Amino acid sequence: MRGCLVGCGFFGQIHLEAWRRMDDVTIVGTCDADPTRATYERLDQMLDELEPDFLDIATRPELHLDMVRTAVERGIPVICQKPVAPTWQDAVKMVELAEAADVPLIVHENWRWQPWYRVVQAELQKGLIGTPVTYTFRTRKLDGDGPEAYPAQPYFRTYPRLLLFETLVHHLDTARFLFGEIEEVYARSRRVNPLIQGEDQVLLLTNHAGGLNGLLDGHRFLDLRPDSPPLGDFTVDGIGASLQVDAAGDVWLWNGRERKMVWQNTVGQGYRGDSVRAVCRHFVDQLRGQREWESTGREYLRTIACVEAGYRSMASGRAESTRTFSELPATGPK
Amino acid sequence: MRGCLVGCGFFGQIHLEAWRRMDDVTIVGTCDADPTRATYERLDQMLDELEPDFLDIATRPELHLDMVRTAVERGIPVICQKPVAPTWQDAVKMVELAEAADVPLIVHENWRWQPWYRVVQAELQKGLIGTPVTYTFRTRKLDGDGPEAYPAQPYFRTYPRLLLFETLVHHLDTARFLFGEIEEVYARSRRVNPLIQGEDQVLLLTNHAGGLNGLLDGHRFLDLRPDSPPLGDFTVDGIGASLQVDAAGDVWLWNGRERKMVWQNTVGQGYRGDSVRAVCRHFVDQLRGQREWESTGREYLRTIACVEAGYRSMASGRAESTRTFSELPATGPK
Repeated sequence: MRGCLVGCGFFGQIHLEAWRRMDDVTIVGTCDADPTRATYERLDQMLDELEPDFLDIATRPELHLDMVRTAVERGIPVICQKPVAPTWQDAVKMVELAEAADVPLIVHENWRWQPWYRVVQAELQKGLIGTPVTYTFRTRKLDGDGPEAYPAQPYFRTYPRLLLFETLVHHLDTARFLFGEIEEVYARSRRVNPLIQGEDQVLLLTNHAGGLNGLLDGHRFLDLRPDSPPLGDFTVDGIGASLQVDAAGDVWLWNGRERKMVWQNTVGQGYRGDSVRAVCRHFVDQLRGQREWESTGREYLRTIACVEAGYRSMASGRAESTRTFSELPATGPK
Repeated sequence: MRGCLVGCGFFGQIHLEAWRRMDDVTIVGTCDADPTRATYERLDQMLDELEPDFLDIATRPELHLDMVRTAVERGIPVICQKPVAPTWQDAVKMVELAEAADVPLIVHENWRWQPWYRVVQAELQKGLIGTPVTYTFRTRKLDGDGPEAYPAQPYFRTYPRLLLFETLVHHLDTARFLFGEIEEVYARSRRVNPLIQGEDQVLLLTNHAGGLNGLLDGHRFLDLRPDSPPLGDFTVDGIGASLQVDAAGDVWLWNGRERKMVWQNTVGQGYRGDSVRAVCRHFVDQLRGQREWESTGREYLRTIACVEAGYRSMASGRAESTRTFSELPATGPK
């Protein structure tokens, strides 16, 4: 399969590395505003000349809508990085464009593809800890302090929405993956680093269908273990036992007396448990076959709806329903 | 000093044991509805006959108001267990009665007297981790499941308000002790055990003056370490370092690479770091001397205001201010 990549910066390089490790995929063209690191400067030119089987978008969110339009006008399937777009309206528009053209649009949401969460999901399904009582994602990284904050992606400093929009969106999506739809969220945030624009500390409570509630606790002022593969840790408590993903990515069963290893993280290459490769692999496999994707554009709107509800909650001081958003796309074309 | 104790059940016995280890205090009389375990059945009779220097109240909250009245009418200083009263109004009434009679009324709030929190407070004051970014109290115990839940205090099963009212009130007070006044709380709760009346799982977010927000995460379906001295664990993150109280009560400094022990818990007797004895000691020392108590009845109304705001938040779905309550007693007599 022949793919093209647009966006060859910090994260685009991680995509390239993942694609390179697939025998059946070749990235035949790359595009970037910086001509020194790509074969094309213009996306339309690349797509017209190379006619690839898919386009991988790894640029900044504000560029995604136009790029999706350019691809779907040409009937080219897209896998697009999160955050999908700067606004809800842009994200919906992208989904509608792709659906109107009947072209697959998949969101590159790698977090739920981290292998430890696949293990947790399987163990929860098997009933290892019974019905969950509550859960916590603790997200940590020490790259948010001072004037040189976020050195790998310095444009983060000017994002008006930062930690929830860019980072915790992953954990909201993973919470949906593990525990089903989120009906309501409440979020509280701060800007700890005065030299940036957005929020860099968030506590967010979720309420799932069925009554389960859990927590996303994030900031970027501490490393739990540099460089922690899951960017923090995760715990889900049942009655008398808990399943934990530690900062190394190992999965443990804990009963208060002893920890028993459920799964050891030995994944030594790729991004955070090789999850970028996993979601890329899923995309191309489904593109060939069943087309039953996780994280289609429409499906992922439900994750974005949780993010939007979180920001509304920060502003309103109340828990906010995710339904206002998730109902909208449900009435759109299939 | 000669004291009397009313309430000789599970927790009254813990008080008695603490008093016994003080050379300068003698409990000269005990009172309980069950005559087999106390010297008196009637509180007024005990106080009139023995004329003690203080009364220690260790009964259920619904009995406290009348008992405080009985003591302060006789000019006898009171140390009264939390929860102070079933309602905010009763708690305020108790404070007003004591203040009108100019008789000391101190709340027996032992949690902030757990030695690991004294260590944390001192280290925060010294600037060990700089300005806090966020904090978490995780409260766990495995005694809430099934028809025989809460075997040590089986009346918990019928409490209309349970986990926040009875347990997390401690952690709210400790959060005030460590981080200053709480201005707003948001709480979400569930009843996991269908065989009880109240809530047994709570996630509660605090907002402090100055912008710090933190989390209380409680349920009683897992032991972090039986029997965990702090009933769970505690973490406060700064930039690049975090202070942690583990389930053993040891205090650690963590920078993401290594843990360094700050204080080892070697307290082998008494309740949870001998905190019952510590607050009792504080009470009698101050009674003799400066009368500059922590947790006077009036001061503790601010903790109760946080609890009340939490229950209002569960009902309203919004963050609730604690100020509506804390302003009321501030206008009362000194």
